[in-house]
Amino acid sequence: MSTIARSPRRAAFFLSDRTGITVEMLGHSLLSQFENVPFDETTLPYLDTEEKAAAVVRKINERASADGLRPLVFSTFVNPQIRFVLDSANALHLDCFSIFIASMEAELGIRSSHAIGLSHRVGQPLDHGRRIEAIQFTLEHDDGLSQRNWQQADITLTGISRTGKTPTCLYLALQYGIYAANYPLIPEDFNRVELPAQFKKLRGKLFGFTIDPMRLHRIRSERKPDSEYASLKNCQYEVRQAETLMRREGIPYLDVTSKSIEELATAVLHQAKLERKIY
Amino acid sequence: MSTIARSPRRAAFFLSDRTGITVEMLGHSLLSQFENVPFDETTLPYLDTEEKAAAVVRKINERASADGLRPLVFSTFVNPQIRFVLDSANALHLDCFSIFIASMEAELGIRSSHAIGLSHRVGQPLDHGRRIEAIQFTLEHDDGLSQRNWQQADITLTGISRTGKTPTCLYLALQYGIYAANYPLIPEDFNRVELPAQFKKLRGKLFGFTIDPMRLHRIRSERKPDSEYASLKNCQYEVRQAETLMRREGIPYLDVTSKSIEELATAVLHQAKLERKIY
Repeated sequence: MSTIARSPRRAAFFLSDRTGITVEMLGHSLLSQFENVPFDETTLPYLDTEEKAAAVVRKINERASADGLRPLVFSTFVNPQIRFVLDSANALHLDCFSIFIASMEAELGIRSSHAIGLSHRVGQPLDHGRRIEAIQFTLEHDDGLSQRNWQQADITLTGISRTGKTPTCLYLALQYGIYAANYPLIPEDFNRVELPAQFKKLRGKLFGFTIDPMRLHRIRSERKPDSEYASLKNCQYEVRQAETLMRREGIPYLDVTSKSIEELATAVLHQAKLERKIY
Repeated sequence: MSTIARSPRRAAFFLSDRTGITVEMLGHSLLSQFENVPFDETTLPYLDTEEKAAAVVRKINERASADGLRPLVFSTFVNPQIRFVLDSANALHLDCFSIFIASMEAELGIRSSHAIGLSHRVGQPLDHGRRIEAIQFTLEHDDGLSQRNWQQADITLTGISRTGKTPTCLYLALQYGIYAANYPLIPEDFNRVELPAQFKKLRGKLFGFTIDPMRLHRIRSERKPDSEYASLKNCQYEVRQAETLMRREGIPYLDVTSKSIEELATAVLHQAKLERKIY
């Protein structure tokens, strides 16, 4: 038997008495600051009783014994009893709630409610109506599909095909409850002297996307290899024409080349000064 | 002049050198623990230089003077210099990064990289390919639209109309990179002795939604008032038939009545033991 054990991946748990989405995001980004440590990340949501918490403590302790290393535990427990149970685990327990609540209580001069689920008190079950309505609107107004009620859009994204309009619209609808439509620019738009009339009415609520032609060429080639649509020459032409049109029409636009969908969505939200409707 | 000033809303800032999505979620849920305090929440993302940070400090200080109350500032700054600038603000500064990094460094025995943007290092710009591909797949397989490549679905949600299948699928695709299809149950499915053949093939990757008939009646009435579709009698019938079918076919299902879209998505992710593909 060798005394040199296989180096285990370091266990990390994200625990919550609700969905765990927040603690998972925060914990994951903290872990990613330690690039050279391989982590084994597990999210366990809805730990809303002391019994469930005790079962998780056993699981964490088993892992600690097996690895010979304490797991890292990130949590957002509103309920102090459940947090207390978790504190008994053989782990580095980093609770994202308790660490701030005390100083917030001191600053605000009142006690917190320690109530589960308040973070989403604004929303109703099944999210009626804003979130679902926003998604419904966005799906109905994807790719210029419907002209109906377009003036209700909080924002209309425009740009040529494959610049990320649809996923960005969906992100805006899902995360922020924004009514986001999109209007694709196609070659026949470039030849027009003017924008289509219904499009003109949206002025002030238009936001454009552009992209590096080489990158666009690669993206389009993945879907339609060796097509005229995907050719570098055509991509260069479409990008140049679309930028000319957006400048001429005074449509603010940004370059999506090095951005992820969530970066695009937050950039649009802030640059277009949209108000988020939901949390 | 009265000495009793109008009670101002307490200012809260969510600051980040990236999108601010994480700090906004965490900060908002912390604030919501203080139900009786009216907060005025502002997110300022992309504060990635000391100059931008200094400008924000001035903004925070102006607000503190105007209100006669220190704002609450939640931040996730990876860059310690920027954090340092913010610490000079007249505010309660709660930095969600620095508070944990030191104890993580001690536990792991190494220094963190203090590098911006690592939390999304897995993703490429414009999120090619998993996130965008997942959204594309989900849109193509919404409402049983396309049968093509359905076997590629990580999960297929089923249930009657207006149980939240589409938004939940989109959330799974956007947040987790899951290929989520959905197959609506319509009255003609109830009269069949068997499920459609292509549906049978999905066994093990099917997950059902059901809902309280009274709630369904209200939801459907908002869209199609006074229709047979929305009538309580029909809603009761469809729910009963759908549940009978799902039980008969061994499809696990959950009741969506009191759940938000994000709760549904995380419940499906965990109950169906799906692996998240992206952070």
